[in-house]
Amino acid sequence: MRKILLIGAGKSSSSLIKYLMDNAEQENWSTTVADIFIEHLNEHIKDNSSIKAIKFDVFNQKQRESEIINSDIVISLLPARFHIIVAKDCLKLKKNLVTASYVSPELKAMEQEVKNAGLIFLNEIGLDPGLDHLSAMKVIDQIKETGSEMIGFESFCGGLVAPEYEKDNPWKYKFTWNPRNVVIAAQGSAAKFIQAGKYKYIPYHKIFRRTEVIEIEGYGKFQGYANRDSLTYCDVYGLKDVKTFFRGTLRRLGFCRAWDMFVQLGMTDDSYILDNSENMTYRDFINLFLAYDIIDSVELKVQHYLNIDQDSDLMEKLEWLDLFKNIKIGLKNATPAQILQHILEKKWTLEPEDKDMVIMWHKFDYMELGQHKQIQSSMVVIGDNQTYTAMAKTVGLPVAIATKHILNGIINKTGIIIPLTKDIYAPILDELANYGINFNEKKIEFQKI
Amino acid sequence: MRKILLIGAGKSSSSLIKYLMDNAEQENWSTTVADIFIEHLNEHIKDNSSIKAIKFDVFNQKQRESEIINSDIVISLLPARFHIIVAKDCLKLKKNLVTASYVSPELKAMEQEVKNAGLIFLNEIGLDPGLDHLSAMKVIDQIKETGSEMIGFESFCGGLVAPEYEKDNPWKYKFTWNPRNVVIAAQGSAAKFIQAGKYKYIPYHKIFRRTEVIEIEGYGKFQGYANRDSLTYCDVYGLKDVKTFFRGTLRRLGFCRAWDMFVQLGMTDDSYILDNSENMTYRDFINLFLAYDIIDSVELKVQHYLNIDQDSDLMEKLEWLDLFKNIKIGLKNATPAQILQHILEKKWTLEPEDKDMVIMWHKFDYMELGQHKQIQSSMVVIGDNQTYTAMAKTVGLPVAIATKHILNGIINKTGIIIPLTKDIYAPILDELANYGINFNEKKIEFQKI
Repeated sequence: MRKILLIGAGKSSSSLIKYLMDNAEQENWSTTVADIFIEHLNEHIKDNSSIKAIKFDVFNQKQRESEIINSDIVISLLPARFHIIVAKDCLKLKKNLVTASYVSPELKAMEQEVKNAGLIFLNEIGLDPGLDHLSAMKVIDQIKETGSEMIGFESFCGGLVAPEYEKDNPWKYKFTWNPRNVVIAAQGSAAKFIQAGKYKYIPYHKIFRRTEVIEIEGYGKFQGYANRDSLTYCDVYGLKDVKTFFRGTLRRLGFCRAWDMFVQLGMTDDSYILDNSENMTYRDFINLFLAYDIIDSVELKVQHYLNIDQDSDLMEKLEWLDLFKNIKIGLKNATPAQILQHILEKKWTLEPEDKDMVIMWHKFDYMELGQHKQIQSSMVVIGDNQTYTAMAKTVGLPVAIATKHILNGIINKTGIIIPLTKDIYAPILDELANYGINFNEKKIEFQKI
Repeated sequence: MRKILLIGAGKSSSSLIKYLMDNAEQENWSTTVADIFIEHLNEHIKDNSSIKAIKFDVFNQKQRESEIINSDIVISLLPARFHIIVAKDCLKLKKNLVTASYVSPELKAMEQEVKNAGLIFLNEIGLDPGLDHLSAMKVIDQIKETGSEMIGFESFCGGLVAPEYEKDNPWKYKFTWNPRNVVIAAQGSAAKFIQAGKYKYIPYHKIFRRTEVIEIEGYGKFQGYANRDSLTYCDVYGLKDVKTFFRGTLRRLGFCRAWDMFVQLGMTDDSYILDNSENMTYRDFINLFLAYDIIDSVELKVQHYLNIDQDSDLMEKLEWLDLFKNIKIGLKNATPAQILQHILEKKWTLEPEDKDMVIMWHKFDYMELGQHKQIQSSMVVIGDNQTYTAMAKTVGLPVAIATKHILNGIINKTGIIIPLTKDIYAPILDELANYGINFNEKKIEFQKI
C-alpha cells in the first residue's frame, strides 16, 4: 500500500482528490489530505476508506515531519511561497514531491542535493504552468523529429465562463481563479517578447490595446494579451533561435478594450492607499480619476476622458457593473485595485449553476523542406459543475497522473524537474484524453500576413 | 570676522558664491568652499581674499569636523541624501545649517535636539522648494490678514530656456536641471491633489494629458502637469480646508502632448534593462515599442500606434531629436529611460550662448466679504549666462540671503525650519527684488469657469 500526502486542499484540489480516490484500489494507494481547513472536504471524501482528511498547520514542524515521514510521495497545492518549507522536509526525509507551481529560485538552488538524494521534485505540472508545457513540447518534438525547423511559437491560456453561461454578461467573464491576480495582471515591468527576430516591449498601459485575436472552431473568437514573462521558456523549450516567441492570456473578444478603461483611469493601481475609501461609493471611486466639472456628470466625464461613445458597448459594460451607482464600498484603507476587485466580485462571481471553461491555444510556425508551415493546437475544457470545474480538472488531473507515474517508476528522472520531455508528457497527455482534456492539433494552410 | 562653510559647489552654487564674495566686506565674513572637485572654481573666485576653495571629502570625518568646528554657519548644497551626515556634525559641534533641500524624515527626527541646542537648521530655501514657500506664504498671509478665507491654491514652477533661445527648438525645452529627474518625472504612485473639495488621482500614463494652461504676460503660454506630491504642503501652508490644492511643473505649451508620446511608447520606463542596448540605434530603440509589420516603416507605425498625423508637429518633434535615425546608442545594460535621456541630451543641452529661464506661478482663490476673488502671482527670471543661470540665481540667492539673516540674528528661530513665516520670507523677498527676482502679484477679475 503506497501512501500519498496531499498538502493544501483549496478549490483546485477537487479533481485531484477524486482521481486519487477513484484509482485507490487499482493503484493500491491511500491518501491523507492535510489542510488548515478540512470541513469542506467531509462531504467530498466520506464513505471512501482510501482517503482521510487531517487538520494541518504547515508551520507546525513536528506535524509536518511526522506526516511526511509516513508518506511515499508528497503533493503540495499550498500557496506557492510555502512549497519551499515542504521541499526542505522532503529532501531531509527523502520523499518525492509534486507541485503545480513555478520553480522558485530557492527551490532551484536545491537541484544538486535533490539529485544526489535520488529524488524527483516535479513542478509546473498543473494547467499553466503544466498543460502548456506538455502540449507545446509534444508538437515541438514532433516538428523537430521530422527534421523541420521551428521559427515561431505563440501560446495562450485563459480561464473563462462556459459559453452558455456568459450570455447575460456583457464582459463574458467571471473570476474562475484568484481575483486579485486578475486585477493586477500584467503590472510591473513592460511585457517582453520576440517578434520577427526582434525583442518587443509593451508598457502596462498599452498591454490591453495590443492584443491578438484568435478563433477556436465551435467556440468563437478570443483575444489574447501579452504575459510579462513571455521569454522565460524560450530557451527551455529549445527555441532559442525562433523569430517569434509570445505567451499571453485569453479573454473573450472585447474584454481587453473594456478592461483598458480601468487601466487608463488608474483603477487597477495597487501601489497606494486611497483616503477615506471606507465611506466612498462606487460613483465616488470612479470620480476620483476624473477632473472636476461643474456641469458634466460622471458618465459624461468618463465618455469624454476615454473618448468613447455614449451608446457604446463600453458604457454598457461599466453600467452593468453598477460603477455609476452610489453603492457604499465599505473597505478601509484600500488601494484602487482592491476596491475595483471588490466591485467586480459582486458581478464576476460564478453563480451556483454556472460552469467555467479553460482554453489553451498554441501556434507553431516551422520550415519544412523550405516551406513555411503552421500547426495550431487548441484545448477547450468545460467544468462539470462548481466542484469539478474546468480549472480544477486541468490543474489537478495532470498533478494526479504525474504522481501516479512517479510512484510507478514511469517517470524516473531525478532533480528539480519541469515536464518538458516525452517520457513525462506522452503518458500524461494520453491519459488526460480519457478525461476530456484533448488537444486538437491541425496543420493549417499557412497564410502569409 | 564670521566664517561661512559652503559644502558642495555644483552648478547651482555660482550665484550663491558670488553673493558671499560681493558681501564679504560689508558683512565681515569669509567663506570656505568645500567640494571634491574644486578646479572649476578657481577662475570664479580668484583675486578674492574673502573666499577659498578646499578639496573636501564628505566621508572624511576628521576633515569634516575640523572644517565645521572652524565655521560660524554651514551651508550644504550636497546631493540631498548627504545632508544628514553634515547635520549630525552641526548638531554635535553646535553650528547652524542651511540647505535648499526637502526635510528628510531622518532630519525631521532631530527636531527636538536641534531646538534644545538653540540651533536652526533652515531647509527648503532654494527655488522649489524655497521661493515657492516664500512667495506663496506672503500672499496667503495677506489674504488671511484682511479676514478673507482661502478657498483654492495652485502653484507651478519650471526651468526652461529663455524665449529668444528656444526659437529653433520645436520642443522649446532643454535640460537646465538634473536630466534624469526630468526623464523619470511623475513616475510611481498616481499624482494626488484636491479639486473642488475632492481628492483626485492621475495615473502616470495620463499625467501629461491632464494639464493646465497658464499665460504669463509678456512670456506667452505655458502648460503645467501635476506633481506627484501636491498635498505635502496643504497643511503646513494652513490650507487644510481649501477646496483646491494643486502643484505642478511648467513646460511650454505643446511639450506635454509630445512628451506623452514617450510615456505611451514606454520609453521613460526605468524599471528594467534592455537586452543589447549597446548595439542598438535610435531607430532600433523606438522600434522596440512598436509591433512588427512587414510593410510599414517605423515612422508609419508610430503615427498609427499613437494616432497622430504624418504632418503633425509631433512627428516634427520626434524627427528633430533624430529618433528615426540609425545612430548608435552605445550604452551598455541601459534602461529605456537611460537611453531616452542619452538621446535627449544630444539636443537638449544648453549651447554656450543659451540662457535659461525659471518661471513660477501661483493662483490664490479666496472669499472676500462673500465674493469670490483671485490673485495671481508670477515670477520670471532669465539667466545672465551659463554661469549665472536663472536656476543658479533662484536656488542660490535665497540660500545666501537666509544665511546672512541667520548670522545677523534677523532669523532667530530654532529647530528644523522651513521658510513659511513672515520674519523669514519678508526680508528675503525684499532683497531678492534687487537681483531681479520679483513676484508680480495681480488681483484679477474672477472668471467663473
